[in-house]
Amino acid sequence: MNIVITAGGTSERIDDVRTITNSSTGSLGLAIGEAFVRYMEETGKIEKIYYLHGLRAKAPEHEGVTAVPITGVLDLQEKLNGLLETGDIDICVHAMAVSDYMVHQVTTLDKLMGTEDPEHAQDLSGNKISSDIDDLIIHMKRSPKVIAGIRAASPDTVLVGFKLLSHVPHEELIDVGYRLLQKNDCDYVLANDLAEIGGDRHRGYLIHRDKTYDTMETNEEIAEMIVRRTTEGV
Amino acid sequence: MNIVITAGGTSERIDDVRTITNSSTGSLGLAIGEAFVRYMEETGKIEKIYYLHGLRAKAPEHEGVTAVPITGVLDLQEKLNGLLETGDIDICVHAMAVSDYMVHQVTTLDKLMGTEDPEHAQDLSGNKISSDIDDLIIHMKRSPKVIAGIRAASPDTVLVGFKLLSHVPHEELIDVGYRLLQKNDCDYVLANDLAEIGGDRHRGYLIHRDKTYDTMETNEEIAEMIVRRTTEGV
Repeated sequence: MNIVITAGGTSERIDDVRTITNSSTGSLGLAIGEAFVRYMEETGKIEKIYYLHGLRAKAPEHEGVTAVPITGVLDLQEKLNGLLETGDIDICVHAMAVSDYMVHQVTTLDKLMGTEDPEHAQDLSGNKISSDIDDLIIHMKRSPKVIAGIRAASPDTVLVGFKLLSHVPHEELIDVGYRLLQKNDCDYVLANDLAEIGGDRHRGYLIHRDKTYDTMETNEEIAEMIVRRTTEGV
Repeated sequence: MNIVITAGGTSERIDDVRTITNSSTGSLGLAIGEAFVRYMEETGKIEKIYYLHGLRAKAPEHEGVTAVPITGVLDLQEKLNGLLETGDIDICVHAMAVSDYMVHQVTTLDKLMGTEDPEHAQDLSGNKISSDIDDLIIHMKRSPKVIAGIRAASPDTVLVGFKLLSHVPHEELIDVGYRLLQKNDCDYVLANDLAEIGGDRHRGYLIHRDKTYDTMETNEEIAEMIVRRTTEGV
């Protein structure tokens, strides 16, 4: 079988040197990649692992792993759909932290409010934004939900979605994760909260279609559980 | 003698998971760090190298190197000044790509324009920005110029500034670099242009106080020249 894993964070370009990035290090994705590599070696059941990763994130080094670097949301969407539409992907673990927003325009407060003095108009057309603007405005629009297109592109793929929240009550975390599962027809959703991540600890809840969930305490435990659950039915 | 090197890029926090980062990989800074480590081993003239680096940038691994991770501009300013004000820093190579802008506020277009419907007001007070805003506005203000404070904090330090431009004529690159040198009382400025960087190539011009300059073609050549010029007079 063939596996797709997305890991790390997308980065949206502002200009030649600046990007908005998700602070994801990709360490959970890497643990998942390594767990699938072990499963591949132990069982011989996996042919290929496609590892789509943000620019900061490391990919597992193994001959069975094809590492694909990803920049922004549209780049991810194009490369992921290209793989899924082959119809050959059995499992898709979509751990990448995808930016909810893309850069729509970079402008100044004066331009936006219509109060710019035409004699001192800022030119923002270059490759690198001038450093002498008083009030710089980065205007962002919602990016497409990549996960929403996965089921349509590949109906039979076992799909694992991810939801990271920050400091919410446990019940809300499970509810939000479960809604993501339902909305996008995922088979599993890994829900986690920044408040429960730190040092060697990474608590994760792997929610099933019946809203029951497995609870894990480290990246490695999460990775092993995802391999176990996704390969059970394949 | 003691050396301070800053390398990589700063990252300005938007919320718990998003940052605006400079896309600097820190590879030139790393080459400079490694060149100073070699000089340290060959001559025994260096006691300590303080290596202040962005979160994405790797530090040279050596017992004489103290690696200090840096987040945003204010963090850099505080840690750099702390070192300089000891009066013990002989050479400061300020290669870090410092963000020209800091996040002032994160808001919505409606809030900014005063056209928000009070019944559907967005709450932006949480740790992580909601993902269902139509028009998200990141309002940025100029950050302090870190390089402008270095000479005042440490009058006798040999100071190397850096200027990276994008696709400008050669003469303009040297002029802009030289103005940076004059304005901040640098001893040298390394000027470079994104158009002349790529693959193994990294053209750099090390501008002197008399506006003459050395021309180098790779990270390693730039690093060796900086070590040579800065240690000549110490």
